[in-house]
Amino acid sequence: MSDLFLRACRGEPVERTPIWILRQAGRYLPEYRAVREKVDFLTLCRTPELAARVTLQPIERFGLDAAILFSDILVPAAALGLDFDFDPAPVLARPVRDAADVARLARTPPEEAVPYVFETVRIVRRELAGKAPLIGFAASPFTLAVYLVEGQGSKNHARIKSLLWSDPATAHDLLERVAELTARYLLAQIAAGAQAIQLFDSWAGILDPATYREFCLRYARRVLDALEPAGVPRIYFALDAGHLLEAIRECPAEVVGCDWRVPLDAVSTALGGGFALQGNLDPCALLAPGHVVEQRAREVLAHARGLERGHVFNLGHGILPETPIASVERLVETVRSYRGAR
Amino acid sequence: MSDLFLRACRGEPVERTPIWILRQAGRYLPEYRAVREKVDFLTLCRTPELAARVTLQPIERFGLDAAILFSDILVPAAALGLDFDFDPAPVLARPVRDAADVARLARTPPEEAVPYVFETVRIVRRELAGKAPLIGFAASPFTLAVYLVEGQGSKNHARIKSLLWSDPATAHDLLERVAELTARYLLAQIAAGAQAIQLFDSWAGILDPATYREFCLRYARRVLDALEPAGVPRIYFALDAGHLLEAIRECPAEVVGCDWRVPLDAVSTALGGGFALQGNLDPCALLAPGHVVEQRAREVLAHARGLERGHVFNLGHGILPETPIASVERLVETVRSYRGAR
Repeated sequence: MSDLFLRACRGEPVERTPIWILRQAGRYLPEYRAVREKVDFLTLCRTPELAARVTLQPIERFGLDAAILFSDILVPAAALGLDFDFDPAPVLARPVRDAADVARLARTPPEEAVPYVFETVRIVRRELAGKAPLIGFAASPFTLAVYLVEGQGSKNHARIKSLLWSDPATAHDLLERVAELTARYLLAQIAAGAQAIQLFDSWAGILDPATYREFCLRYARRVLDALEPAGVPRIYFALDAGHLLEAIRECPAEVVGCDWRVPLDAVSTALGGGFALQGNLDPCALLAPGHVVEQRAREVLAHARGLERGHVFNLGHGILPETPIASVERLVETVRSYRGAR
Repeated sequence: MSDLFLRACRGEPVERTPIWILRQAGRYLPEYRAVREKVDFLTLCRTPELAARVTLQPIERFGLDAAILFSDILVPAAALGLDFDFDPAPVLARPVRDAADVARLARTPPEEAVPYVFETVRIVRRELAGKAPLIGFAASPFTLAVYLVEGQGSKNHARIKSLLWSDPATAHDLLERVAELTARYLLAQIAAGAQAIQLFDSWAGILDPATYREFCLRYARRVLDALEPAGVPRIYFALDAGHLLEAIRECPAEVVGCDWRVPLDAVSTALGGGFALQGNLDPCALLAPGHVVEQRAREVLAHARGLERGHVFNLGHGILPETPIASVERLVETVRSYRGAR
């Protein structure tokens, strides 16, 4: 049983820095593209045997130190009775815009609404057979709410912000409903076998600190608090959140995920220690020649050297579809052979 | 002659906080849309009488405290021999990708390549007749280089980052060429009558501090230093730059423009004083009801109250096309009637 990743998350001593990769199962892998030639993205998410297969692909190829459930952050929206499609970005059939839309949301238990997610978790755990731990995930309530309200990709996020400021009561109602669902959804992933969870806060960074605390952090905390009794490491990953670090100190998580914008030592100082950090190589670095991949990965490792609570190596954002396999191999080698970890 | 804006930029005492609005001439104005019904965007930029007319529209309608030249940050690329179109986002006919592309760039003086820009400045100055000062502008060299290298809108900016890391010598050559052009371009705007300039660093925020210093700040400084003898206020506006404020302290500018993400008092602390600040209402706030517009504008004014070097009110990003005119009126009233300025 390899528990390197879990020990690093808990700030326990490790013999080397563990590594996994955001979107490690995905379009840069030929074996993933082979599966996707036969099924569309949503069918893949909803078919446990296939979702499990692609979850395992990067573990088999690179021997990464953690697997992460293959799914999408919109998947649990089905439990609210919301239908969506990918075209290729997510598009909601009927966005949530006002109090009546919020009142109309379904309350289907996630186990009934999206049973395939938990079946995928069970299959992956069985097939991993202890080779690597499995991470479950969900969006933070605010980030899921951004998708539910905007209904599709948005440059300015004007609809969600209008809702927060024009009708905060409805925004809070929506966020409470989503937080309740998200906590149940993640507890069900843990019950099915997920050994750590990551809460993705992809849109936290569009907010100023006061709005972030009121509408985003508050509900992320509620979800993370609900997971505490389960005892698995909780990773909170907010993108573009350099201006929110003081608020993130209050987050009940063991690990804070970091994008590439702020060096890990500076993040650690701003957070006042107390968290293991995960990150934060710029995914664009993997498009550079091998020696640059190695050099930049070493820079990340060097910035992480003095961290009080340990380091999980990762990219600062999802791996790009055009990434050469050789770059990932070089990255994994570089991190594996590094001996600066505590 | 109203020099309220210029005095605020210089940190001199003002009787009230001046206000202008990012993209104040644009699609939210019916009189702008009326002009655009007859000509396309590029023709508008290249026709001095029309560009001057739309520059003046928001001054006439709202009595704002500064006008800003109507143009686009890609316009000076013509002096490098680069052709582009808007579809509706900018698309370069032939992006700059390697050393040969950089060597091939033209060195046409901006006065020859884009004479219409300076003619627009002259017309606007004449027609403003001292009612409000005129701001000229350009992109920072890095931000213009992002467009030149990516060639079109990009989510990950993988091409520019690949160039920076894979071939830094070529990246520096390109940035030097662009910095040289940008300095000449802005000096020519000042010679034609621009009374302040703003350097837009729309893509600074995609960089970590070390990369920002090497490839972005360095060339922004070069441009701003070249303008110093002209003696006009220099505004440096980097978007999403909360993690770069320590580096921005080194910027030779009188004013730092701020997006909505960090409250002005916190920006001022991070910058160590020494700059007037411009900003920073979230443009999405203008989509909310009038009392919310007023409340959020007052919050910005309150955060600016203790600033050592003064405040120019603005949005934190360009005004949204769907903004109601009544919201802009309410905003302008709120800022005009505020008596907290020094």
